[in-house]
Amino acid sequence: MTATDSHDSIRAVLWQGDHLRLLDQRRLPFEETAIDCRSADEVAQAITDLVVRGAPAIGIAAAWGVVLAARRDPATLPAALERLRAARPTAVNLMWALDRMKRAIAAGADADALAAEAQAIQDEDLAANRHMGELGAAQFGDAPVGVLTHCNTGSLATAGYGTALGVIRAGYAQGRIARVYAGETRPWLQGARLTMWELTRDAIPATLIADSAAAHLMKSGAIDWVVVGADRIAANGDTANKIGTYQLAIAARHHGVRFMVVAPSSTVDLTTPSGEAIEIELRTATELLGYGGQRTVVDGAQAWNPVFDVTPAELIDVIVTERGVVEQPARRGMAGLYAADAA
Amino acid sequence: MTATDSHDSIRAVLWQGDHLRLLDQRRLPFEETAIDCRSADEVAQAITDLVVRGAPAIGIAAAWGVVLAARRDPATLPAALERLRAARPTAVNLMWALDRMKRAIAAGADADALAAEAQAIQDEDLAANRHMGELGAAQFGDAPVGVLTHCNTGSLATAGYGTALGVIRAGYAQGRIARVYAGETRPWLQGARLTMWELTRDAIPATLIADSAAAHLMKSGAIDWVVVGADRIAANGDTANKIGTYQLAIAARHHGVRFMVVAPSSTVDLTTPSGEAIEIELRTATELLGYGGQRTVVDGAQAWNPVFDVTPAELIDVIVTERGVVEQPARRGMAGLYAADAA
Repeated sequence: MTATDSHDSIRAVLWQGDHLRLLDQRRLPFEETAIDCRSADEVAQAITDLVVRGAPAIGIAAAWGVVLAARRDPATLPAALERLRAARPTAVNLMWALDRMKRAIAAGADADALAAEAQAIQDEDLAANRHMGELGAAQFGDAPVGVLTHCNTGSLATAGYGTALGVIRAGYAQGRIARVYAGETRPWLQGARLTMWELTRDAIPATLIADSAAAHLMKSGAIDWVVVGADRIAANGDTANKIGTYQLAIAARHHGVRFMVVAPSSTVDLTTPSGEAIEIELRTATELLGYGGQRTVVDGAQAWNPVFDVTPAELIDVIVTERGVVEQPARRGMAGLYAADAA
Repeated sequence: MTATDSHDSIRAVLWQGDHLRLLDQRRLPFEETAIDCRSADEVAQAITDLVVRGAPAIGIAAAWGVVLAARRDPATLPAALERLRAARPTAVNLMWALDRMKRAIAAGADADALAAEAQAIQDEDLAANRHMGELGAAQFGDAPVGVLTHCNTGSLATAGYGTALGVIRAGYAQGRIARVYAGETRPWLQGARLTMWELTRDAIPATLIADSAAAHLMKSGAIDWVVVGADRIAANGDTANKIGTYQLAIAARHHGVRFMVVAPSSTVDLTTPSGEAIEIELRTATELLGYGGQRTVVDGAQAWNPVFDVTPAELIDVIVTERGVVEQPARRGMAGLYAADAA
């Protein structure tokens, strides 16, 4: 992989010196338009509205939201932190990035110093993704494998390169991946709209499937690994990720397909003992009652729209972070990552 | 349930004396428009294009297609039978209905006699659905259960009342069902568009979910039974049904949720020993690359679009037909249904 790869040109979150530019992911892949945010409130709203999504990208955008508040009026910082924290409840990277900015504020950082901190969060995320790509790809072995992924975990969801999609990029570059299958990921179709766009730009052989075709595909033998991201990883390895991940993990175990979670260590929340304690965001039924703005369901219908689910650690074979790889997390838990000997 | 129930007014397939009227299911729930077919070719095309869908309804429509050919020119009957048989490959009810019409032709039936035979197929299907409704609902026990269904198996998919949805109608009428959850069923959204429409018309409490939310819902304890239809049931009980059914069956077994298949005995194909021998229809990638004419996936993307999958008999607790109930089909197979003592 070189610095001229197509995905290097994708910037979901880009600081413009005095405001934050967010690629409007709701309009991809057919419109590459951006939304400029000039206040923490605007950033929080953009996060809630899914202009920017993906746990790491949300954290980075929120950090820049804090910078915007500091530039406008440092007195608004406490309220801005609260507003940003409430923008989405499940992704812990958001809380992690805001806590880091809060510590910098407590240490007396001014707006410029906070901007440097936000930029550091962003730069570290990109570096972590590159490192996780290598660590994850090494799991595949030498014979090219078939990989199934879910939602979007690529450049659009991060500072660049991606988490699960970073592992896929590295694995493909090393000749360890034959083909990638992407579930379309209803209701927002992040797999169909975003992952297929990123894979197509990088000329990685990719096939879209309906979310409910995954088990049938696994039965055919085409899939060796499921590789997904995470929005929060509890201390015991239980992992919250996009709705449908748990269903894939059950199907993978049923077929002897291996299951890998890829996420920066900022996704690991040691204060959450298990998945039971993770709040699952419920979004409006409207997202399920139509498709691409076109209503498909009869008036008066109810829908249940949880955005995430929890995959228990027992169904996960490997969790990859930039701090190292945890195999069989159900046996080991995540705390070992923070020991001195973490690989 | 009385003759004035809302679903009694839904007629997916209606003979008009000299032509066949098909409710255009592609336009539901917002447009109730019909397509009139005046030749077997038009009926075959309507089946291929999903104007009419659902294994029993396809069989009934094809039978009327034979009547149209006989009325036009009996010499065209062999070609019409072939054309109709090729309209969709997986649903065996289509082959069953055409074989029945072929036997009537061989016995010397004229156009009027063939019309009587087609009407008998249609009437028997409705009666079978009512009977299966009672047999299936009796499986639920007395405490109201939560039921998950997939695709559409209601009045729209049959001569009326429905197979799996017939069991749901009967179960709800008897107070044995608390709530129905419907998977939206990508890519054609039969669950979202059609099942939610039928359930809403009948005022049965219903909640739409994304297909990939099913396992998360099961984990919450809301689901006691998954109840689905079938397009072909092999001699060993392996069942082809809408893509996603297999994934639901795996998730159901993982959570101790029971799994019921409901289909008329014309769906049972004793000449197919197991699911391995069932041809799975693949449809165009276009169906996954957008919805309702609106493209959602980047140009040049590939997609894999199998319409059905096979659920092995081991994952099925009960198969309900109008000839009786087969519990644990993996142990018993389907041939017993045709023995004199079938319940």
